[in-house]
Amino acid sequence: MRILSSEMKPLVSLDQHEAAQLGNQLFRFASELYPICRSISGDGLRRTLRLIGEHIPITISEVPSGTVVFDWTVPKEWNIRDAYIKSPSGERIVDFHKSNLHVVNYSTPVRAVMSKEELQPHLHSLPDYPDWIPYRTSYYKEDWGFCLSHNQLLTLKEGNYDVCIDSTLADGHLSLGESYFPGRTSDEILISCHACHPSLANDNLSGLTVAVHLAQLVEKLRSDHHFSYRFLFIPGTIGAITWLARNRETASQIRHGIVLTCIGDKGNFHYKKSRRGNADIDCAVAHVLSHTPGSPEILDFFPYGYDERQYCSPGFNLPVGCLMRSVWGTFPEYHTSADNLDFIAPLKLAESLGVCAAVFDVLENNTRYRNLQPFCEPQLGRRGLYRSAGVNSMPDEINARLWVLNQSDGQHTLLDIAERAGLPFATIREAADLLAASELLEVVSENPARDGASQAARNE
Amino acid sequence: MRILSSEMKPLVSLDQHEAAQLGNQLFRFASELYPICRSISGDGLRRTLRLIGEHIPITISEVPSGTVVFDWTVPKEWNIRDAYIKSPSGERIVDFHKSNLHVVNYSTPVRAVMSKEELQPHLHSLPDYPDWIPYRTSYYKEDWGFCLSHNQLLTLKEGNYDVCIDSTLADGHLSLGESYFPGRTSDEILISCHACHPSLANDNLSGLTVAVHLAQLVEKLRSDHHFSYRFLFIPGTIGAITWLARNRETASQIRHGIVLTCIGDKGNFHYKKSRRGNADIDCAVAHVLSHTPGSPEILDFFPYGYDERQYCSPGFNLPVGCLMRSVWGTFPEYHTSADNLDFIAPLKLAESLGVCAAVFDVLENNTRYRNLQPFCEPQLGRRGLYRSAGVNSMPDEINARLWVLNQSDGQHTLLDIAERAGLPFATIREAADLLAASELLEVVSENPARDGASQAARNE
Amino acid sequence: MRILSSEMKPLVSLDQHEAAQLGNQLFRFASELYPICRSISGDGLRRTLRLIGEHIPITISEVPSGTVVFDWTVPKEWNIRDAYIKSPSGERIVDFHKSNLHVVNYSTPVRAVMSKEELQPHLHSLPDYPDWIPYRTSYYKEDWGFCLSHNQLLTLKEGNYDVCIDSTLADGHLSLGESYFPGRTSDEILISCHACHPSLANDNLSGLTVAVHLAQLVEKLRSDHHFSYRFLFIPGTIGAITWLARNRETASQIRHGIVLTCIGDKGNFHYKKSRRGNADIDCAVAHVLSHTPGSPEILDFFPYGYDERQYCSPGFNLPVGCLMRSVWGTFPEYHTSADNLDFIAPLKLAESLGVCAAVFDVLENNTRYRNLQPFCEPQLGRRGLYRSAGVNSMPDEINARLWVLNQSDGQHTLLDIAERAGLPFATIREAADLLAASELLEVVSENPARDGASQAARNE
Repeated sequence: MRILSSEMKPLVSLDQHEAAQLGNQLFRFASELYPICRSISGDGLRRTLRLIGEHIPITISEVPSGTVVFDWTVPKEWNIRDAYIKSPSGERIVDFHKSNLHVVNYSTPVRAVMSKEELQPHLHSLPDYPDWIPYRTSYYKEDWGFCLSHNQLLTLKEGNYDVCIDSTLADGHLSLGESYFPGRTSDEILISCHACHPSLANDNLSGLTVAVHLAQLVEKLRSDHHFSYRFLFIPGTIGAITWLARNRETASQIRHGIVLTCIGDKGNFHYKKSRRGNADIDCAVAHVLSHTPGSPEILDFFPYGYDERQYCSPGFNLPVGCLMRSVWGTFPEYHTSADNLDFIAPLKLAESLGVCAAVFDVLENNTRYRNLQPFCEPQLGRRGLYRSAGVNSMPDEINARLWVLNQSDGQHTLLDIAERAGLPFATIREAADLLAASELLEVVSENPARDGASQAARNE
Repeated sequence: MRILSSEMKPLVSLDQHEAAQLGNQLFRFASELYPICRSISGDGLRRTLRLIGEHIPITISEVPSGTVVFDWTVPKEWNIRDAYIKSPSGERIVDFHKSNLHVVNYSTPVRAVMSKEELQPHLHSLPDYPDWIPYRTSYYKEDWGFCLSHNQLLTLKEGNYDVCIDSTLADGHLSLGESYFPGRTSDEILISCHACHPSLANDNLSGLTVAVHLAQLVEKLRSDHHFSYRFLFIPGTIGAITWLARNRETASQIRHGIVLTCIGDKGNFHYKKSRRGNADIDCAVAHVLSHTPGSPEILDFFPYGYDERQYCSPGFNLPVGCLMRSVWGTFPEYHTSADNLDFIAPLKLAESLGVCAAVFDVLENNTRYRNLQPFCEPQLGRRGLYRSAGVNSMPDEINARLWVLNQSDGQHTLLDIAERAGLPFATIREAADLLAASELLEVVSENPARDGASQAARNE
Repeated sequence: MRILSSEMKPLVSLDQHEAAQLGNQLFRFASELYPICRSISGDGLRRTLRLIGEHIPITISEVPSGTVVFDWTVPKEWNIRDAYIKSPSGERIVDFHKSNLHVVNYSTPVRAVMSKEELQPHLHSLPDYPDWIPYRTSYYKEDWGFCLSHNQLLTLKEGNYDVCIDSTLADGHLSLGESYFPGRTSDEILISCHACHPSLANDNLSGLTVAVHLAQLVEKLRSDHHFSYRFLFIPGTIGAITWLARNRETASQIRHGIVLTCIGDKGNFHYKKSRRGNADIDCAVAHVLSHTPGSPEILDFFPYGYDERQYCSPGFNLPVGCLMRSVWGTFPEYHTSADNLDFIAPLKLAESLGVCAAVFDVLENNTRYRNLQPFCEPQLGRRGLYRSAGVNSMPDEINARLWVLNQSDGQHTLLDIAERAGLPFATIREAADLLAASELLEVVSENPARDGASQAARNE
C-alpha cells in the first residue's frame, strides 16, 4: 500500500503550521457534535451518525429492542426532549437545555412536585469538584435522577420542587454506525469507537473525530490498500456486543484492531495491549509510540475498560488494543462537565491522527524481503547508496540500508528490522524501497500478518 | 479441596489476637522439644519422634547401621548419657546437662585425665561471639570434643582436667518419622524437615513445629483433599538419602514438595526454588509470598543447603523447594547456643504456618475453568455480580470476576490468572467459586498439576 | 584439549611481572610492523605477511586484479615509493617518509606544480585535533590527496607547490594471509583480523599481534586440540569478501569465530555479538568477560563495523563476533596519527591475549558430563573432596563440585553450569576434572558445539 503510505506520511511529519490547520479541522468537527445529547440508543445517537455520514459513507443498522445478543438483550430506546427542576419560587434551577449532563442518562419520565427531602436521593454531585456536574447513567435499572454541581446542591432550600423529565423509554431500536472500505484482501483492520456519550469531549468525541478523519484518508485511496478497513461508531458495551453477535463471520476476518478513546487531551499516549499481548497491532503501536515524542506508556491488557473488553473476550480473543492519551477514569475531569471542549486540544487531535496513520503504514507495509546478494555485502558504493568516503559517522538512512540487507533473509519483516535497528519504521521502509528499486531485494511475503488462530495457539 | 481451603483460609486472615494464640501453641511445642539432645541417630531423635506422635499419627522406621543407601552407608547409632570437663579443682566446668551443645555431636566415648595442652585441640569456641557455645558435629570421622564459650575457654588454667564423655557409638538404627494422609489421588505433596539438631530452636524446631501443625490441619480434612500429604521428620542428609533409597517408587508420586527450616525467627521470608526453577511449587510459593507483608525474597536453586539437595539431585530432580525466614548460615546465631527459644517468636511461627497453608490452598485449588459465556462479557449486573451504577472505581472482587471470565478459556489455571491480575489467589478463587455457582464457569481440570516428567523435559 | 587448557591457563593467571614480559614481547612485534605503509594490496601488505611468517607458518594467496568476488571486483594493486609537497621555497613540507598517513591511501600518481588554490581541495586535516594527521583512503574512486595536521595547513602560504606522488595503480594482486592448524576434527575456529591499515597501532596492529601470538600457542599443541584453527590476516572488507568467495566450503566448517581489532588500548573490553546473538562464541566471550576486571560491555550485533559484517551477512550467518577494547570510531584517536604506539600498552595486549586464550579454553572444553551417582549426592567426604568438618562457609572449589554433580544430567555443558553457578569456567572445569578422576562423572559429549545450521534455525 505505497499510496496509503505516501498519503499517510505527511501526517507524521507535519510542520507546526500544517498540524495546527489539521487540528483545527478536527476540533471543528468535535465542536459540531458536542451539544448533542447522545445515549446508547435514541435520536441523539442517530443524529450523530448522520452527521458522520456527511463526511464518510456510513451504514446505520437499527436493531430492535428485545433482540437477544449473547447473554444480553437490546434495551428499550430512550429519548428525551426536556428536563428541569423548578425551585419553590418557580425558577428553572436545573435545566437540561443548559447541559444534557443534568439528567441521569436513561432516566424514566417524571412529572411531580416533591419536597427537598423526597428529591434529594435523586440528586448527584461531586463534593470534591464542587463546580462540576457529574455524568451518570442507569441503562439497565429503571430509575431517574439529576446531576448538578455540588455548590448548587448546597444552595437548595426547603420547599416544594417542580420536577420534570420529559423522556420516553419504549420499544425502539439500537443504532449501529459502520463504514467499510474494501481493500485488496478481505483481511480487516477494525477501528472502533463508542458514540454514546453526551456532551463529553475527550470521552469520546475525540475518538469519533479521529476515526472519521482516518476513514476519509482511507477512502481517498480508492481500495488501493492491502487490508479492508472497518470503522464502527457504536454505543459502548451493548453496541459492541450487538455488533459481534450479528457479525461473527465478519469478526473472524479481523487481523488487527484498535479502540480509540480519550485521544484529544494533553496527556501522554497510553496503549493498552490486546489480550494476546504480542499481536501485530500491539507491536506496531508500541513501535510507533516509541518514536513519538513524550513518554508514551504501554499497558498490559486488563479485562475492564471500553469495547476492547468484548473484542478480547475469550470466545473472540481478537487482536484489538486500545489507544488513549490520558487513561479513562484516571483524570478528575473524566465523566464530568469538565470534560468539555477546553479539555481537548486541536494539536493533540492531529497528533493522535498521525499516530494512527503511522500504525496503518506499519501494518500495510510490513513486508518480508529476501536479500538477492546475501553472500557478503553488496557494493553499495558503486550504486550511489553508500556514504561519502572519509565520513566516519553513519547516517540513519545508510544504517537502515545495511540493516535491511543484513536481516532480509526471508524471515524478518520490516517491523522486526526496525525494532532491531532502533530506527523508525518509515526509515526502514524507505531503505527497503530504494534497495528493491536497485534489485537488491525481492518480496517474500507482501503482508505477512500473523494468522489470528495460529497466533492464539502460540500464546496459550 | 474446598474444605481444606476453608480450613486454611482463617490462618491467612487471622486477627492479631488469634495469631498470638496460635503462635503460643506452636511455641509451646517447640519449647517442649528444645531440651532434648538429638542427633542423626539415637534415643534423642526417637524421643522427639514419639513426642510428635502424640499430636499426629506417625510411623517410625528403624534402618540398621551398615545399610547401604546409594553412595552412603547408614552409620553407627550414637547415644549419650553424660559428659563433662572437671577443673583441676574438681569442679564440673563444662557440663552436658547444662547444654547439650557442649559435646561435639557423635563424640566417641572418653574417660581420661589430661593436661590443658592435651585437652586444647578438642575444645571449640567462637572468638567473635565470646558468650556463645558453638554447635559442632563429627558424624563420619570418629573424634570427640567439647564446645564452650570463648570467654570460658580463656579462663582455663594450667593443670590436669578430668574429661568424660559417656557416649556409645555402636551398631543400631537410624530412625525415620513419617506421617501420611491419603487424599483423593495418590499424587503427593511432600513436607520435609530435619529433626537431628539438638537444642537449636530456629534450626530446626521451627520447621518441625510448623510441619506438625500443618499435618494436624490436613488430618482434620479426613481425606477430603486432592493430594496425598507426606510429612517427613528425618535426620538431615543421611535421613533424606535413606528415605529416598528405600522409597524410589513413592518418590515418583511427589508432585510438589517443600523443605521447612529456620522459619521461626524475625527475618523476612526466603524461598529457594527447586532445581527446576519453574515448578508449580516454585510458582505457588512465589505467589503467596508476593502477597505477604515484608520483603520476601525468592532465591534461585543452588546445590548446597538442606535436604532439597537430595530431592533435587539430578536422578530425582523432584519439584522440591525450601522455605526459610532468615537463610541458614547467614545469621550469626546459626549453629550456636544463641539459636535458642528467644531467637524464635510465636507470631513468626504462626505467620509461617499461614504461608504454608496458603500454598496448599493454591496447590489444591489451582483449577482450570472454561467460561460458558465466552463470547463478549456475560451480563454480571442482572446476576448481582457487578459494581453499583455510578461507581467508577473497580473493587478487587469485581476485578477478579472479570479476570476469571476473561482468562478462563480452558488454558489458564487460577494461579495463572491471579498472577496476571496481580491479585491474591484467594480473591481469584472466591471469584471463581461465585461464577461457577452462577453457572458461568465449568471445570476443565480439577487439578492440573504439571507432570514431573514433562516439566523436567520442558526445562532442559 | 587438556593441553591447550594447561597451556592457556597461565595466560589468564599471569602475575604482574610475567604479564609485563609477555606484553613487552607483543609490543615489540607491533613496533616492528608499525612503520610499514600497508594498504588493501601491494608490497606493504606483502611485507607484513612475510614478517608474520617469521613467527608462524603462513600461506599467502595472490588473487589477480579483476577477479569477481560476489558483488565486488578485486581492484588494481597499489604501490607507493615516495610522495611529498615542496613549498614555494623548495622545502619538503609534507613528506611520505615522515609519516605514511600523509598520502591518501590508494592515491593515483601525481607530478605537478600547482598553486595553493589548486592544491587545497586535495588536502585533508582535522580542525578539531589540529596536531594530528588524519588517515584517508580512496580505494574505489580514483583520486589523490595529502593529509596533514591542521596547524600545518594553516601555515601554507600563497605560491606554487611542487607536488609528487610516486605511486602505481595497476593490475596486480590482492594478498591474503592464512595460517591453519588442524585439530582432531575439521570443525574450525576462525580468528580474523584486517592487515591493511598503515601506521596505526590500535587499528589494527593490536589485532595482528594478538592473533599471531595466539597462533603460536595453538601451534605448540601439535594438533592435540578438538577444533582446527584458522587465522586470517587480510585486507578489510575486500579481503574478507574475497576469502569467503574462494572458500565457501571451508566457511561451512566454521563453528566459532572472532574478529580482533582495537585490542591494545587502555579502554574496557567490548564484545559485539554475532548476528545470531546467542551463538556459543557469544556465550563464551560474554562468560569470560564477566569474570574479567573492568567493566566489559557486550554489544548487540549491528551490520556495520569490521569484517564480522561479511561473515554475518545473511547468506553465511556465521557465528562470528568482534572483540575490541575501545570501539572503533568512538575514540578521537581513531584513524589519525594519534593511534600510534603510545596509544597501545604492553599490558593491555597481554590481557587481550589472555581473554582470547580463556575463550578458546571454554570452547575446547565445554564438555557435557553425566553424573554416575545421580540419586542423591555422592559422599564426597570419604573421597577427600568435601570441606573440613565445622566449616560453615563454602569455598568456590567445593561449590563448583556440587554444581557440576547437580547439573551433570547429560544436558548441561560446563559453560551452562559455570553460568548458573556464577563461577569462572576454569573453576568449573577443574571441579569436573577432579570428579571425573574419581569416577563420579562420565563424558556424554566431548564437544557439543551447537551446529551452525540448527542454531540458525532456532534463532529465526
